Amino acid sequence: MKRDRRLIIIALVSLVLAFAATAARAQDPLPSWNDGPAKQAIVGFVKVTTTQGGPQFVPPEVRIATFDNDGTLWPSHPIYTQLAFALDRVKALAPRHPEWKTKQPFKAVLDNDLKALAAAGEKGLVELVMTSHAGMSTAEFEAIVIDWLDKARHPRFKRRYTELAYQPMLELLAFLRASGFKTYIVSGGGVEFMRPMTEKVYGIPPEQVVGSTIQTKYEVKDGKPVLMRLPKIDFIDDKDGKPVGINKFIGRRPIAAFGNSAGDREMLEWTGAGNGARLMMLVFHDDAMREYAYGPANGLPDTKFGTFPQSLMDKAKQQGWVVISMKNDWRSIFPNK
Amino acid sequence: MKRDRRLIIIALVSLVLAFAATAARAQDPLPSWNDGPAKQAIVGFVKVTTTQGGPQFVPPEVRIATFDNDGTLWPSHPIYTQLAFALDRVKALAPRHPEWKTKQPFKAVLDNDLKALAAAGEKGLVELVMTSHAGMSTAEFEAIVIDWLDKARHPRFKRRYTELAYQPMLELLAFLRASGFKTYIVSGGGVEFMRPMTEKVYGIPPEQVVGSTIQTKYEVKDGKPVLMRLPKIDFIDDKDGKPVGINKFIGRRPIAAFGNSAGDREMLEWTGAGNGARLMMLVFHDDAMREYAYGPANGLPDTKFGTFPQSLMDKAKQQGWVVISMKNDWRSIFPNK
Repeated sequence: MKRDRRLIIIALVSLVLAFAATAARAQDPLPSWNDGPAKQAIVGFVKVTTTQGGPQFVPPEVRIATFDNDGTLWPSHPIYTQLAFALDRVKALAPRHPEWKTKQPFKAVLDNDLKALAAAGEKGLVELVMTSHAGMSTAEFEAIVIDWLDKARHPRFKRRYTELAYQPMLELLAFLRASGFKTYIVSGGGVEFMRPMTEKVYGIPPEQVVGSTIQTKYEVKDGKPVLMRLPKIDFIDDKDGKPVGINKFIGRRPIAAFGNSAGDREMLEWTGAGNGARLMMLVFHDDAMREYAYGPANGLPDTKFGTFPQSLMDKAKQQGWVVISMKNDWRSIFPNK
Repeated sequence: MKRDRRLIIIALVSLVLAFAATAARAQDPLPSWNDGPAKQAIVGFVKVTTTQGGPQFVPPEVRIATFDNDGTLWPSHPIYTQLAFALDRVKALAPRHPEWKTKQPFKAVLDNDLKALAAAGEKGLVELVMTSHAGMSTAEFEAIVIDWLDKARHPRFKRRYTELAYQPMLELLAFLRASGFKTYIVSGGGVEFMRPMTEKVYGIPPEQVVGSTIQTKYEVKDGKPVLMRLPKIDFIDDKDGKPVGINKFIGRRPIAAFGNSAGDREMLEWTGAGNGARLMMLVFHDDAMREYAYGPANGLPDTKFGTFPQSLMDKAKQQGWVVISMKNDWRSIFPNK
């Protein structure tokens, strides 16, 4: 009897504790973030910028937050998602181009010869992108992207790329929006490769996606207006192109910016150079077990996709930019299936 | 006595009628529009696109409406406002450029010689714009624009340009926003000439202003990041550039578009080519008394600033685009002082 009563009491206490923990979790807008300096920086920044009458209050209309995409909101390894798309497109188009069997860089793609592909350099990559991203209307391209995003799977995680958005960043996006922020993507990736999926995956509508663009041309075909995608670069939204793109497309300086690589340095500088409260953060991929680990900062292996050099790490320290350790700051990486 | 009572009754009836009229006016979101086909087209379009469950209902996130600026939201006569700005800038900069006294097109500006200015052609105009719009940082340019908009006066109406936004269009913008629409400017004008005033004047925030751009370059000067304005055209948001700009900056097709000249034709075509309910409207300046009258459509005088050719009038009829007659459709033109 006594034992039974004790068990009942233990069960009741456990129930109460479990309930309290669930309630606390429910109140926490960032449950996938471990307590630590990164999470504290976010919560503190949102608090001071949204506290009406406070010294660092920011009116809602200027609460602009910009996010890089590859490596910041979803993986950029083993290769950029858009490059995986380009390679798949070349393979899909190959039957119509028998000459590609002997012509680089197409031959390298068809042979899965990454070494020869690397040897083709930037010029080769641009040629691949132009071949796979141009020559159709914007509507046709959108349909191709939607179809590919549905069918393609990440080679390691075996899930759709759109299912690999980082859970902690999804929580951060939602938390900022719930706090009156307008969230933007500012990515080196192609704007029309991202727009078909950003609303569904990140809750970011197409008009809040800034990225690289290729030229388009307005034509009336059989009485129907179309925008044709031309094999010509219009704008590269990377490195010093990011502040340029922010100014051109948004026309306001962000008060918060999130990146993960050397390509985001100028966006964070530009954001930090404004007056008032600011939050600049960099995702550092130091989690080979759950995702990937690369730098070359902090002695991690070097990479071609999302390089985080030591100079960026030093700059972050010097400027007070917060470096997010995937390994230590993130409780989970991907959404549950 | 009898007469007194009758007077009292008349007074009471008048009071009731006056009250009823005021109430009706208060309910009318477009009090500066006369009843007629233009007003009916607007009210009908908003009704069908916002009636939940109706066959033409449009979800709020795709209720995109785009507006040309010059000649659609504010006057473009006697010359474009931005050209007036450029001419004033050249005059302000002249003391530092003694060579302009003998060099075209600058000499023409300093001599107020409109004939010589016209003779300088488009090349001359581009030179004037580059001289007056480039060579400074984006922040410096913004300050110059704000200062000019405060000091300059329209030569005929003797008011600030920003006080000459068309009252009926201000009501239309507010009505659309109250109905869940997102209102954008899509203008041939320079985006950084418009952004400093659009929020205050039209209720349109900087990030919803699409326009022509010049190239900018990111630089760090004395440790402070700046965007320098280069004397190079980046993008011309006019004619077939308007659908291109809409696709690039907004990434969604509008369901309503408003213009006033040949430069808006492709924007209206592109808008009309989408599926579902659409509204395309053109402001026709046929009111020399209260504003200006020009075409050359319908036999009105030709112009260089906001040409409305007969072919556009014919196209409008053929496509069901609604032509707004300033003279007949607008009860008032400018806001009361």
